[in-house]
Parts: sequence; C-alpha cells; structure tokens
Amino acid sequence: MKAEIITIGDEILSGQTTDTNSAYLGEKLSQLGIEITFKTSVGDDIKNISEAIHNALNRADLVITTGGLGPTNDDLTKKAVVKVFKRNLIFHEEILKKIEGNFRKRGIPMPKINQNQALIPQGSKALDNQWGTAPGILIEERRKLFFALPGVPLEMRTITESGVLNILQKKTKTLFFQKRLKTTGIPESYIYEKIENLLKAKTGVKIAFLPSFLGVDIKLTSESEKRLIEVEQKIKKILENNFYGEGDITLEEVVGKLLLEKKKTISVAESCTGGLIGKRFTNISGSSQWFERGVITYSNQSKTELLGVPEEFLEKHGAVSEQVAILMAEGVKRISRTDYGLSSTGIAGPTGETPEKPVGLAYIGFAHENDSFAEKHIFGEDRNTNRERTAQAALNLVRLFLEK
Amino acid sequence: MKAEIITIGDEILSGQTTDTNSAYLGEKLSQLGIEITFKTSVGDDIKNISEAIHNALNRADLVITTGGLGPTNDDLTKKAVVKVFKRNLIFHEEILKKIEGNFRKRGIPMPKINQNQALIPQGSKALDNQWGTAPGILIEERRKLFFALPGVPLEMRTITESGVLNILQKKTKTLFFQKRLKTTGIPESYIYEKIENLLKAKTGVKIAFLPSFLGVDIKLTSESEKRLIEVEQKIKKILENNFYGEGDITLEEVVGKLLLEKKKTISVAESCTGGLIGKRFTNISGSSQWFERGVITYSNQSKTELLGVPEEFLEKHGAVSEQVAILMAEGVKRISRTDYGLSSTGIAGPTGETPEKPVGLAYIGFAHENDSFAEKHIFGEDRNTNRERTAQAALNLVRLFLEK
Repeated sequence: MKAEIITIGDEILSGQTTDTNSAYLGEKLSQLGIEITFKTSVGDDIKNISEAIHNALNRADLVITTGGLGPTNDDLTKKAVVKVFKRNLIFHEEILKKIEGNFRKRGIPMPKINQNQALIPQGSKALDNQWGTAPGILIEERRKLFFALPGVPLEMRTITESGVLNILQKKTKTLFFQKRLKTTGIPESYIYEKIENLLKAKTGVKIAFLPSFLGVDIKLTSESEKRLIEVEQKIKKILENNFYGEGDITLEEVVGKLLLEKKKTISVAESCTGGLIGKRFTNISGSSQWFERGVITYSNQSKTELLGVPEEFLEKHGAVSEQVAILMAEGVKRISRTDYGLSSTGIAGPTGETPEKPVGLAYIGFAHENDSFAEKHIFGEDRNTNRERTAQAALNLVRLFLEK
Repeated sequence: MKAEIITIGDEILSGQTTDTNSAYLGEKLSQLGIEITFKTSVGDDIKNISEAIHNALNRADLVITTGGLGPTNDDLTKKAVVKVFKRNLIFHEEILKKIEGNFRKRGIPMPKINQNQALIPQGSKALDNQWGTAPGILIEERRKLFFALPGVPLEMRTITESGVLNILQKKTKTLFFQKRLKTTGIPESYIYEKIENLLKAKTGVKIAFLPSFLGVDIKLTSESEKRLIEVEQKIKKILENNFYGEGDITLEEVVGKLLLEKKKTISVAESCTGGLIGKRFTNISGSSQWFERGVITYSNQSKTELLGVPEEFLEKHGAVSEQVAILMAEGVKRISRTDYGLSSTGIAGPTGETPEKPVGLAYIGFAHENDSFAEKHIFGEDRNTNRERTAQAALNLVRLFLEK
C-alpha cells in the first residue's frame, strides 16, 4: 500500500509552525509496512489544497491530510475535500452534541463559530476527537482511503491511535520488520566505523542512522525477522553499553525502571541544567516512587545553604568544578535521605567562560551508598544544546551505574 | 522570488526524525519576502533526490536542500547534485583542514570517513560549517540559486545565518511587512470572536492564527507597513493583557526582562512541573541576576522539610490545594530571601485523580512583598500538556503581576 501525507497551513510553509504531524504519521504508517512515497505541504489556499489532494489520490492508495479543520475562515480543508470528491457538507446533530459536551467539561461556553465543525462531507465517517472540537473525517471511494485529520498534534495523534490505525491494520499486513536501537554517548561516525562491515555486507537488513544531539538511533529494517535479529544481536554486542533501549523508550524511562527494580531512590541538585534533570525524571508517571526531590541551586548561596557546600570550596575551586559537583551530589543525597544523589554544574554559555573553563564544560556529580565521584564533559558552544546534553549525560551516568 | 525547500532523508518520510529545518527556512525566507510555493520530502534515494532537485529548479528561482551531506554511505545529496548539474566532485585541501581543526578542538581524532566531506561539486562555493564537518554548498547557474545544507539543525541554521541569508538579501527586496503577536491564556476561538470584524473587513492585512497549547500567535502580513501597524494597534487593544510580546520572544524572556528592570528576584517551588519552571527561567542567559534558586518538592516530606509546609496541612487539604500552593510559594520566598516566590502543585495525570480532584487540576502559588495568593486551573488529561501549560500559566501569572 502506497501512502501520501499532505500537511495544510500557511504557517507550515512560512515556517511559523513546525510540522510534527507528518513525522508522526510517517512512523506509524511505516510500522504497518505502508510505504510513504511523497510528503507535500501546501498553504491555506483552496485551489492548492484541492490540487494536492487530487494528485495524491491519483498516485496513492491512502491519503492523509492534517490541518485546516478549525472553525475559523482560514480553515479550508473541508471545502477542498467536498470539491475534490464532489459531495456536499452535511450537518450532524450528534457531532454538535459532542462538541458542546467538550466545552461543558471544561466549564466554558461554546463560541457560536464552533457549530461549523458539526458539518462533514456527505457519506463520510466522523472520527471522534476526544481533545478538541474538529472530528476527523474518513472517505472511502473506489478502493482509496482518504482521511482528513485536525492539525493540533495531540488531537491528530489521538484520532490516529483510536481510529485510523485500526482501520488501516485491517487493510494491510506487515511487510517489514523494524527495530530502533537507541544509543547515547557515542558519535555517529564512531558507530559507523565500528559496524562498517555490517553496513557493507549483504545482510538483507537496511541500517540507518538517526543522529540527534542526545544520541544516535539506529534503525534496522528487513523483510526477514530472522536476519533482522541476527544483525541486531551483532550491533548490540558492538555497541556495548552505549545501547540503552529499543523503540520509543526514553532514557528517563530506562533509569526509572532500573531504580524501581532495584528499589532505590534518587534526588538531584542542578545548577547549569536549571531543573531539566528533574523535569525529565518527572516526565514519568509514577516517578514519585523513586524521585524524592530536587534543588535548583543556581546561586552560590543556595549551594551553601541547601547543600552545605562550604563557601571556601566555592571560592577556591569555583562553582563549576569536580569538587563542587561531588559535594552537591553528596549534599542532596544527605538532605533527602535517598540512595543516590545526582548533580550538574557547568558553563552553559554564551557567557561565563574563563581561561581555564570554556563554555560547554560540565561536571556531573554522583553520590551512592559507598562513594561519590564526578564526570567531566566538554560539550559545545550552544547554551540549549549544552544543557540538554548535560541532562542526558547525567541520566546516562545513573543508567550505567545501575546496569553494572 | 519563488523558492522551494527539499528535505532529504528516509528518516523524514518514515517519521523517525521531525523535519524542523523546513519550518526554520520557511520563516527566514518569508521574512525576506521570498514566497515558498512548495515543500517536498524525499528519502535517501539518488533517483528521487535528483528528480526532486531537477523539478524544483525548473519551477523556482531558489532551491534549498537540507540533509544527506553526512559522511556515511546513505548520504547521497552531493551525488544527486553532481548528476543534476552535470559536474564532478572536487577535493579541497582547505576544507579538509577545517574539518580536521573541528575534531582537534573537541580533542577527538577524525575518523577517516570524514575525508569525504572535503569533496564538493566543481565550481560550487563551500559555506563554512562552524559546528560540524559538512560544509554547505552553493551553486549559481542560469540565474537560479541552489543551496545544499547539512541536515543537523544547529549546523543548518548557523550556515543559513552566517552565509545563506546575506547572499539572498542582496538578491531580493523585502516585499512584505510581517508581525507576530504572541498571546497566552485565551483560546483561538475567543480571539476569533473578538477580532471577527477586523478579519472580515478589507484592511489589506492578512491575519492568521497559530495556536499551540501554550498560547495563540497571531501573524499579520501586509504590503503596507502603515496598514499593518493600524491593524496591529487595534488587535493589541482588543487582546489587552493576553498579548505578551512580538516575534520570537518567549514568555520567560518577557518575565526575565521585567524582573531585571524592576530589580526583583524570584525563586520557585515546583511539584507537578518537576523542574520545568526552573528550566524555562534558566533558558535565559543571565538569569542568575534574578533567579536565585528552585526546589522540586516532589514528596510531601520535601515540602515540609524544605519549605516548612506543616504535615497537618498536607493531610488536611492534600498536596494539591490552594493552601499548599500558597505555603510553598511563601516557603521558597522565605528560604531564598527573594522578592517573589512562585509555586506549582497539580495532578498531571494519568494517575492520582480523586473524586474532588480531577487530572488536569493545578494550583499556582505566588508570594510577593505584601501578600500571597493562588490561582486555580483545570487543564486537560495529557500529562505532558498539563505540565507545560502549568509552567506557562505560572510564568504568565508573574508577568501579569509585574505589568500591573
């Protein structure tokens, strides 16, 4: 089955919104073995939207659009759909009732304009939108499937998971086996050199690298499950502990599971990451079982008052130092009476550099049952990247300690 | 000048990577008055890449590709470019030296495979890549401009800002005036109803809504600066204090500037947001001038020990309550001796709901010179969205207080 995705909205062409929808749909469709051959973005222009839908329906078996279903006058997808499919828009009382119900749940009155959203093309099926007011739309015609979904990512995803994927699953069989291996702490070109032989051998498994500044994901695709597993095992062995999980799993999930399994608790003391490590831990529902507290000790005074880092130490070694990282980790472990204490201190940039301490320098401190230590990193020059990478390295340090 | 953007990589079609590059380029080009007519994504397939470049060069005056310039064998853009332009790849010693220099700066040896990246098409210009190893490439031919940029966002952006935009600026004149008004705390359909007259009137100004779960941006575009300003003034008046800034500014930047101007300091005590408010404050370089510290009091014990919230209070009202939010804000203000204390406590979900306290309930506490109070919100059911919206509402509360 060949598919095309069309994302609609001036804001996508002019870049005022990043299109995350087509990436999400691409991933979900390729997991079903559906091949995406083309992705197109068009603006809020009825002619261009119609043309894009028309062309896509000619080429592909499945077309999914996102966006342009809102209540306002620049939302034109339904008008284009009825034009292409030569149908009328029909009002549905039961859709209106659901929309009104959504507003009632939030305790706010429904603006009149939202009534528009109870209109859908004749002969189409409405797909429930649990988070918003625009239902998804499904049209089946001449063995082609057409879905129009809202552009708000959460709404689009929920409709996809509760409706679209079930419908597609019945129409396809999985043609490809896929695995995504997640790594951190090793650059793409190092992985490349380590697995060069596998890349060049005729294994029947396609290997792709998906680098980001938090790590490199390795995607394996094969028509043979057996071959996929063989290559997977080899790569995992080569990667050693740089591999941390599969599929969609996040590093904080891995760390959380390990802490839960080992019945250990953790607390954090953050300086340069400013709360990001705590935020990542608490991304996980149920993290209160193992995450006790955090302190964001941004000032020197707070490091002394909350964590007992002596002023002399801060003066002598500087706040960004191995010694202070260790004392911060020990301090937060002590005050929270957790099994582990984790800390970060660094120069995120762009200011704060000294001759001995460049932007990008970061120390991660860790205190455990018997000892404590700090790990030194030199990241790059971009503030945001440095903070994200420091948090990632901190989580990874805990993972490596727990996996030992 | 008409432009097309082509993003290259299997990972984009299959959705394993979200394409943020085309959004960024779309925004930058439209600021120069360059119209983007088409955005295409293709996979790592030399035939498809060549075809996409060929078609785009036929239709547009300017074509920019991103991706496929890495050192590994699935990076095919340069091969496609030399095919389309009928040129050879030429080795440049001075590019190799720069790449080697980048590795040296990071203190790691250059893998041999990176030598490939010193090859660029004959007659093309290399654009310096300060953050990575693949230079950008510029080809000018028959009044058409073609840029091939790396896919790593930071690298692509830096080359765009240090090279591409200067080159384009010389070739265009700004045709459109644009403004982006940022709002928070008011839904899209409410804004729509409030400015419906302006939307329907022939003002010569195009008004577009860009909603996200943190707020709605309103984008104004006009060929007349005077008309744009007229409409802008009217909208700002209607929006009142839901408007918080223009262009790329973030809410944390607005709050940071206000605190700096008023010479006030702040500290935070976070429960449900788990560090996110601190993270957002410390996104701002120089935030140490006004952000003193934060505590992530995830457990009840930490609320008592660090902030002095009495155990009886937690038992009587529950951790998610107006009273506890206020005591948390007062507590963190007291221990950090800042002018203001800000707090969050809520049920982010999916678990933790009680009959009286639904998922999505959040209290934001604020303590200032004379008094303290808490604000109640009921957000939705998605954990991540609830946390992001709580942090946004907390920053907005501080902004509204400071703007009074």
